[in-house]
Amino acid sequence: MTPEETLQQRGIELPEVRSLHPAMAPGVITGNLLYLSGATPPDRDGQPWSGRVGETYTVEEGYEAARLCAIQQLAQAKAVLGELSRITRVVKVLGMVNCVPGFGQTPQVMHGFSELLLDVLGERGCHARSAIGVQALPANVPIEVETIFEIA
Amino acid sequence: MTPEETLQQRGIELPEVRSLHPAMAPGVITGNLLYLSGATPPDRDGQPWSGRVGETYTVEEGYEAARLCAIQQLAQAKAVLGELSRITRVVKVLGMVNCVPGFGQTPQVMHGFSELLLDVLGERGCHARSAIGVQALPANVPIEVETIFEIA
Amino acid sequence: MTPEETLQQRGIELPEVRSLHPAMAPGVITGNLLYLSGATPPDRDGQPWSGRVGETYTVEEGYEAARLCAIQQLAQAKAVLGELSRITRVVKVLGMVNCVPGFGQTPQVMHGFSELLLDVLGERGCHARSAIGVQALPANVPIEVETIFEIA
Repeated sequence: MTPEETLQQRGIELPEVRSLHPAMAPGVITGNLLYLSGATPPDRDGQPWSGRVGETYTVEEGYEAARLCAIQQLAQAKAVLGELSRITRVVKVLGMVNCVPGFGQTPQVMHGFSELLLDVLGERGCHARSAIGVQALPANVPIEVETIFEIA
Repeated sequence: MTPEETLQQRGIELPEVRSLHPAMAPGVITGNLLYLSGATPPDRDGQPWSGRVGETYTVEEGYEAARLCAIQQLAQAKAVLGELSRITRVVKVLGMVNCVPGFGQTPQVMHGFSELLLDVLGERGCHARSAIGVQALPANVPIEVETIFEIA
Repeated sequence: MTPEETLQQRGIELPEVRSLHPAMAPGVITGNLLYLSGATPPDRDGQPWSGRVGETYTVEEGYEAARLCAIQQLAQAKAVLGELSRITRVVKVLGMVNCVPGFGQTPQVMHGFSELLLDVLGERGCHARSAIGVQALPANVPIEVETIFEIA
């Protein structure tokens, strides 16, 4: 099965990829690496995400937002690559959680991102990762994640 | 026109690159990639930057500080590469804004960085980017940015 | 002397590397680069680290925690590479310090990380670096660091 077929089987539709600024690209290829711009979670039921984990959102809601970021990153990768099967490995993930001070469960939030990639890409989805808590994110979304893929 | 000629035409002089620590380099080349150490904005009118965006500084002042970070990164790149025309692409930018909690305009601040690169490097200046808000930065500067360049 | 011999001479034992999640690896190799998952400091005298620099911990304690992160990163590199002599260069380090707002000494904390790498790896240990202050880290540890190595 291709990653696209797995996504379809899961009932996951890739969202639209919008360009944010003429100086920015959804992703840049250099050699065998694809560096993506950070993804924020697409709207849920037509509502934008706004607020901090540990305050506005629970860990479970943060996990769901992280999962949506993974879907958004795959949409960016597909926009650049054409086919997700060109991905040979997820190399590195940096998860940045907009949270209250001292919030210690950034990994539990980020598992929503990591598990989606593992599900869709199989063993190629296993990656190096950091998960940190930050002060602020664009439009006050609860999470932003950036990924480096190895591609064929 | 070379990037150096564009800088001169804009009246931009590249600042001095100081070594911060014997274990640190302004940038490290591996293969066709140049990884730069994070840049903070050089002094403005002889005054060091100190304070947070959304408190001490407005979004417009943050934009100006971000633009100065881009000039500082180009100075670092030139110190390592000799000639800026060796840059074939700006691959990835991580912008870290020292700001008040919940500040949602980190992208608007970072546009000051991105637009300078696009102006000086042309289409090679288009890049993947994340823009986050952080709790603290060296010497309490309002912004730090790190860049990965592809080089020939 | 190999890096392992230098570590032994300094009385430094590499800690165990635990897998945190089936979707995560201690490090991922792509081409000549090794991307590591972020390291947090191993327990000190059987006590886990918990708290912020500038509040629970002094700059000197933060420096010690950063040094322990470097040892943890070397343990991860060894788990992936087998021999640390395969490291030809430390390319890039991102230090994330869990600290109070406005804490301006993140570089002084991160020197604990950088100096250990320089000591153990010699001139190959010299690297590009950023040092930022963050809102929260896994289990409220005071520091997390992620490294990119160039390998042979």
